[in-house]
Amino acid sequence: MQVSVSTVLEAYERLMAEGVLRSRPGSGFYVAGPVAPLALTELGPRLDREVDPLWISRQSLETASDALKPGCGWLPASWMYEAGMRKALRIVARSDTVKLTEYASPLGHPPLRQFLSRRLAGMGIEAPLEQIMLTESGTHAIDLICRFLLEPGDTVLVDDPCYFNFHALLKAHRVKVVGVPYTATGPDIEAFGAALLEHAPRLYITNSGIHNPTGATLSPVTAHRLLKLADTSSLVIVEDDIFGDFENTPAPRLSAFDGLSRVIQIGSFSKTISASIRCGYIAARGEWIESLADLKIATTFGGGRLAAELIHQSITDSGYRKHMESVRLRLAEERDRTVARLDAISIKPWMIPQAGMYVWCQLPQGKDAATLARACLNEGVVLAPGNAFSQSMTAGDFLRFNVAQSGDGKIYEVLKRALSA
Amino acid sequence: MQVSVSTVLEAYERLMAEGVLRSRPGSGFYVAGPVAPLALTELGPRLDREVDPLWISRQSLETASDALKPGCGWLPASWMYEAGMRKALRIVARSDTVKLTEYASPLGHPPLRQFLSRRLAGMGIEAPLEQIMLTESGTHAIDLICRFLLEPGDTVLVDDPCYFNFHALLKAHRVKVVGVPYTATGPDIEAFGAALLEHAPRLYITNSGIHNPTGATLSPVTAHRLLKLADTSSLVIVEDDIFGDFENTPAPRLSAFDGLSRVIQIGSFSKTISASIRCGYIAARGEWIESLADLKIATTFGGGRLAAELIHQSITDSGYRKHMESVRLRLAEERDRTVARLDAISIKPWMIPQAGMYVWCQLPQGKDAATLARACLNEGVVLAPGNAFSQSMTAGDFLRFNVAQSGDGKIYEVLKRALSA
Repeated sequence: MQVSVSTVLEAYERLMAEGVLRSRPGSGFYVAGPVAPLALTELGPRLDREVDPLWISRQSLETASDALKPGCGWLPASWMYEAGMRKALRIVARSDTVKLTEYASPLGHPPLRQFLSRRLAGMGIEAPLEQIMLTESGTHAIDLICRFLLEPGDTVLVDDPCYFNFHALLKAHRVKVVGVPYTATGPDIEAFGAALLEHAPRLYITNSGIHNPTGATLSPVTAHRLLKLADTSSLVIVEDDIFGDFENTPAPRLSAFDGLSRVIQIGSFSKTISASIRCGYIAARGEWIESLADLKIATTFGGGRLAAELIHQSITDSGYRKHMESVRLRLAEERDRTVARLDAISIKPWMIPQAGMYVWCQLPQGKDAATLARACLNEGVVLAPGNAFSQSMTAGDFLRFNVAQSGDGKIYEVLKRALSA
Repeated sequence: MQVSVSTVLEAYERLMAEGVLRSRPGSGFYVAGPVAPLALTELGPRLDREVDPLWISRQSLETASDALKPGCGWLPASWMYEAGMRKALRIVARSDTVKLTEYASPLGHPPLRQFLSRRLAGMGIEAPLEQIMLTESGTHAIDLICRFLLEPGDTVLVDDPCYFNFHALLKAHRVKVVGVPYTATGPDIEAFGAALLEHAPRLYITNSGIHNPTGATLSPVTAHRLLKLADTSSLVIVEDDIFGDFENTPAPRLSAFDGLSRVIQIGSFSKTISASIRCGYIAARGEWIESLADLKIATTFGGGRLAAELIHQSITDSGYRKHMESVRLRLAEERDRTVARLDAISIKPWMIPQAGMYVWCQLPQGKDAATLARACLNEGVVLAPGNAFSQSMTAGDFLRFNVAQSGDGKIYEVLKRALSA
């Protein structure tokens, strides 16, 4: 074949490394046993799956990349901070050995915690380094807090509607979940007070900043009243700040009002920089962080040092702020466009959010979102039906739209057809 | 200062990105509030901490990098596959956007699962792609399995001694832990049988391949007898294969004998390629993998796609096999040297392992390993005292040495001094 021996040997080496060939010393190279081809065994979307809190996650994560995903919870890959990621990878490729190969310290990469400490200070939250711990993701942060604070049988308050994965996560903790209706300015304060009295919940999990799925923002008055109500209880509040960088004007933070006493703030970078790199954080009281670190080591051992290094490189890069500015502008345009196109087929927004990627929309009377979602999935459109977000299952005629994933006209054709079926 | 305006603006942008400066539109740039300096607030080793299963983890992960760590569970950074990591980072920096920014599929990066499927086939374990799920780490793999299979109050068997973090992990699951004495050929079969009858355990967690901390390897006879005993029970076995690539001759795998029926194999790449990248796997029955995937999404959401991509690039690189060959040779040399130096101060190996980085050693009569560990920590030497590994607390005169971390003569001076104190 007119190639040198060393080329053939290198090819053999690579095929051995991939496990395709095996060498038998003194005999030669042999093809290893056959393995089923990739395409046949990879999971596809399961059309028959129950529309439960995990439905949207599995459909969004599993479905082929050419599917349309207006129900998906994140930005399209092309909207992410790709240039920053590539630059960060090149920088880290040249960094010292320890960064590339060693475990992180128990609380995680100090420079990223330093950055977070400064960012939190900018929101009026005083959190020194020892009150910040990195985690593998925002979800992992909440999971650790639940493991730390909850006993099976405890009660947890969530917003109704709320991010559907809170339901799945809390189910794994075997706790009782009580939903508090969410209004355009935060949780319904009367219902919140009543739930505190009736259920003596241990934990309340919410998004402040931009609320998922409604796009609403907490008002200062609601924040104040909520914390005042909590004063008479032993409630701990987890504030998921994952959409902070999407805000045009910062909404109040419960953790700032409260001073990280009963409020824990968590967050991650997967909605802005990259979901492929796993990194989140917890900011909380110092003694809680110490216990959470032990729990983190026991259950995942070291944290992702490389991931934290890549996130730190990207987020402190001067391009990140400009990138997020353009994302915010683009979202505002897409929001207007999406709302108008939905309006044309009689799907109405519950409110027009000030920022973020979500619009929470109501279907025409008598239409069921889960039925619609199944029908549309058959045509390659993944929706986010309302009851996956609703503890009380009273959002059966709602859908959450992600305006960044709703640009394709086919979505509206498929929706229109399914609505009139 | 003779620099251009654009240079100053870029400097301002970077300082703003790091949160050091803030801009007030129409007014100018201002220094943001002060943040406590890094060095003062970073955690140092806590000398007063109880010597419990988390002691060694925290000391190894926290202590300054100039400390000597013969008790540490991993290779020094300079022994890791650094060249492969750098190359993988450069390749991934040029890869397509989706890899850099999107979530992984629920079971994780298919090419890495394909590679694992081939590697398992080479050990006689038939595991098609849908029976392999990637996790954030080996510890995370075991944690997910525990969450899936265990109820609080269940009984779990471990080896006595075993990897100390199994104790910390099982404590987080609130289960009863029973230790089975470990022999040079695997668990003591009579004790194992008796424990099965007496405690009806749900799970047995072990390292096959090279055992941590003893360095022993499971014999085929013990593997056969153990599985035969398990036949009469509903026991599930987790086989942690993390040291597989350190073997010179592959030891039997319980998962191969059993055919992934009641045995689950887990593993990771943090002992060979990099501990800074978090990536592990679970190979198990198909229906278990399906449930484990739901649990993974609920508790961590997406898996680390970038981490899996980097591991796949490194491990299928033709240099990896050669790298591990040289690591194995180097470990053999260091093992001989370490054993001789320990012998000179009357610290005796329980057995001489065939492979791997550990030697499990007994102190001279009457000496207590925890006391010794505290004394040596004061002199900058981190040890791994035996009782952290022992459920029955009967290894108070044992230490685990990592031969790759035991090259510095100071270790033996400090040990000698502490022994004669």
